[in-house]
Amino acid sequence: MPPMLKFELLKREGAARRGRLTLNHGVVETPVFMPVGTYGTVKGVMPQSLLDVGAQIILGNTFHLWLRPGLEVLRRFGGLHRFEGWPRPLLTDSGGFQVWSLGEMRKISEEGVRFASPVNGDKLFLTPEVSMQIQHVLNSDIVMQFDECTPYRSGERLTTEAEARRSMELSLRWARRSRAEFERLANPNALFGIVQGGMYEALREESAASLAQMDLPGYAIGGVSVGEPKEEMLRIMAHTPHRLPEHKPRYLMGVGTPEDLVAGVAQGIDMFDCVMPTRNARNGHLFTRFGDLRIRNARHKDDERPIDETCQCPACRGFSRAYLHHLDRCGEMLGPMLASLHNLHYYLNLMREVREALDAGGFEVFAARFRQERSSGIG
Amino acid sequence: MPPMLKFELLKREGAARRGRLTLNHGVVETPVFMPVGTYGTVKGVMPQSLLDVGAQIILGNTFHLWLRPGLEVLRRFGGLHRFEGWPRPLLTDSGGFQVWSLGEMRKISEEGVRFASPVNGDKLFLTPEVSMQIQHVLNSDIVMQFDECTPYRSGERLTTEAEARRSMELSLRWARRSRAEFERLANPNALFGIVQGGMYEALREESAASLAQMDLPGYAIGGVSVGEPKEEMLRIMAHTPHRLPEHKPRYLMGVGTPEDLVAGVAQGIDMFDCVMPTRNARNGHLFTRFGDLRIRNARHKDDERPIDETCQCPACRGFSRAYLHHLDRCGEMLGPMLASLHNLHYYLNLMREVREALDAGGFEVFAARFRQERSSGIG
Repeated sequence: MPPMLKFELLKREGAARRGRLTLNHGVVETPVFMPVGTYGTVKGVMPQSLLDVGAQIILGNTFHLWLRPGLEVLRRFGGLHRFEGWPRPLLTDSGGFQVWSLGEMRKISEEGVRFASPVNGDKLFLTPEVSMQIQHVLNSDIVMQFDECTPYRSGERLTTEAEARRSMELSLRWARRSRAEFERLANPNALFGIVQGGMYEALREESAASLAQMDLPGYAIGGVSVGEPKEEMLRIMAHTPHRLPEHKPRYLMGVGTPEDLVAGVAQGIDMFDCVMPTRNARNGHLFTRFGDLRIRNARHKDDERPIDETCQCPACRGFSRAYLHHLDRCGEMLGPMLASLHNLHYYLNLMREVREALDAGGFEVFAARFRQERSSGIG
Repeated sequence: MPPMLKFELLKREGAARRGRLTLNHGVVETPVFMPVGTYGTVKGVMPQSLLDVGAQIILGNTFHLWLRPGLEVLRRFGGLHRFEGWPRPLLTDSGGFQVWSLGEMRKISEEGVRFASPVNGDKLFLTPEVSMQIQHVLNSDIVMQFDECTPYRSGERLTTEAEARRSMELSLRWARRSRAEFERLANPNALFGIVQGGMYEALREESAASLAQMDLPGYAIGGVSVGEPKEEMLRIMAHTPHRLPEHKPRYLMGVGTPEDLVAGVAQGIDMFDCVMPTRNARNGHLFTRFGDLRIRNARHKDDERPIDETCQCPACRGFSRAYLHHLDRCGEMLGPMLASLHNLHYYLNLMREVREALDAGGFEVFAARFRQERSSGIG
């Protein structure tokens, strides 16, 4: 498989890695957090503002973009970059997680997943081949294999090892079909494989080893953030990265809190994505280096201070907690706009600090101070 | 009454006027359009973006800000400017229009208007004195007198001349009480009177003459945009400005379409405000120099062109009609954000062109071309 991306490991500290990804639309310094732009927009944030707060690469959701605006429109624009006005690298998921989220509305077979469009009821059939075809039209810099996201539980019952094995093996077969179609399409971007195996370390190990044999340009850890207890996620995060090829980027999908990110870096993760900074912003949940702040709380009603006096984001440089509280209370759009900018700035700035600490060989010290500050509480 | 504002007439063409208002927070070139920021935010637009698209002065609504965040918070911030992060001039209405809009929920007497707060049901009493006290706390550069907005109709029945007279005379008495309280408070800003009289020209004339005797620093024409047919509004707009003192700024409240603005300038109006650019934007109604465009229309689905190829706004410089159509269809916040920026840019740029035409003595030619282009239709 030709090198459609370059990944350099610049520095290490313990298991933590400082790296540099070169993709078709630019360079990404790792460890990196990737904001999520499901429908071709990071909710409430202009592309220019994303650049201003330091975003290097953002996500798009294959499933959503397939339904709206659809491939005809995206093809006309030569892909997602021009359509959404984002000049830098893009990663798209495979649609697997979204069809999984449809629950009872979908039917999974060896061939793929049948479901009815939640937009207009159309009968749709998503397969590894179709996922590759959509992502080829999107022209994303990083393409994710089509996988089955193994659930943590079905109703009250936890997923058994036998079920997790069947699911993991299906994802492996789909990885091979994904690669075959990706190559048939002569997609010039990079295809990542996804490790599955549920909460079973032996299965994770088997999945990682089989994917490693495929020599893909990067690997993701999927099937976390699917409703499992936090300790279960942390257990997988402490296990699986160390079973992945050393010189390939490692992406932990859908994770997480600031603490999760720093802990993930310590375990050798290079890439993260999560809706948390933007979704929580819309609910008035703000992240700061001194802990989280709920702007809806009445104690902020007349507080003249910014969210965080040490923060350089556009919300903290111009507006008070009292004003943000007021905007939230009145349901004004500017509230989520400013909160999203603040939270994204916080996440992206945190990862910049992580990279600087790694560059300087001081990640462990940084991580200790980070945990201490985060738990100190914001006044 | 001391000069708390300076108004210079720089140029005239027919009845149209090119002027310059000097207020406590800066200079306003007229004719001017003032974006509306009801709750201390122009919906969906950052203050910096307002400056970028050329806003010189924005509105706040006394009634809304009194209810939320309330005077205690606003007093702590020394007024609305610092609270909302807007460094330039502000105008606040008196609350009269909003209590009028409450319909059956309010009771008007000589003393003022009793009503229940639509936010929490509190019994409130808004009087000329209270309105002046609130606007003093807001520290708006232009304070509007408390008035009764004469309705165009009550149910099926048009307002009679006798009713309009009673209402107009009440507003005149409230103008005197507003001025007395404004002076008692030693408000350093500018108080504007409001001409009422319904659709009766004789009453309008009487109202204008009585207010002129008060020698206020500026005058507004109220009681239009209250549900009357367009021709009625245009008739009042062609009548009343000419009865107002020549060397005072003239403000037509709540008007209107781009055509209304250019027609208003031709009748000697200096100031306009309207929710139309922002409210219509949120409904996918976009203004352009070649006519209006409904972005929800399916014909925009795959259109790669910007809203208007000749427009320099942030929406037109970065995004296609297809993308804006997609954002609207998906209910994405970025849709109204970009549409609001576009419409405000259109309105503010139109007024800049009007001022340049007046400066060059070419307003009549400009207005003819404007009408011709606007009716040509956008492709």
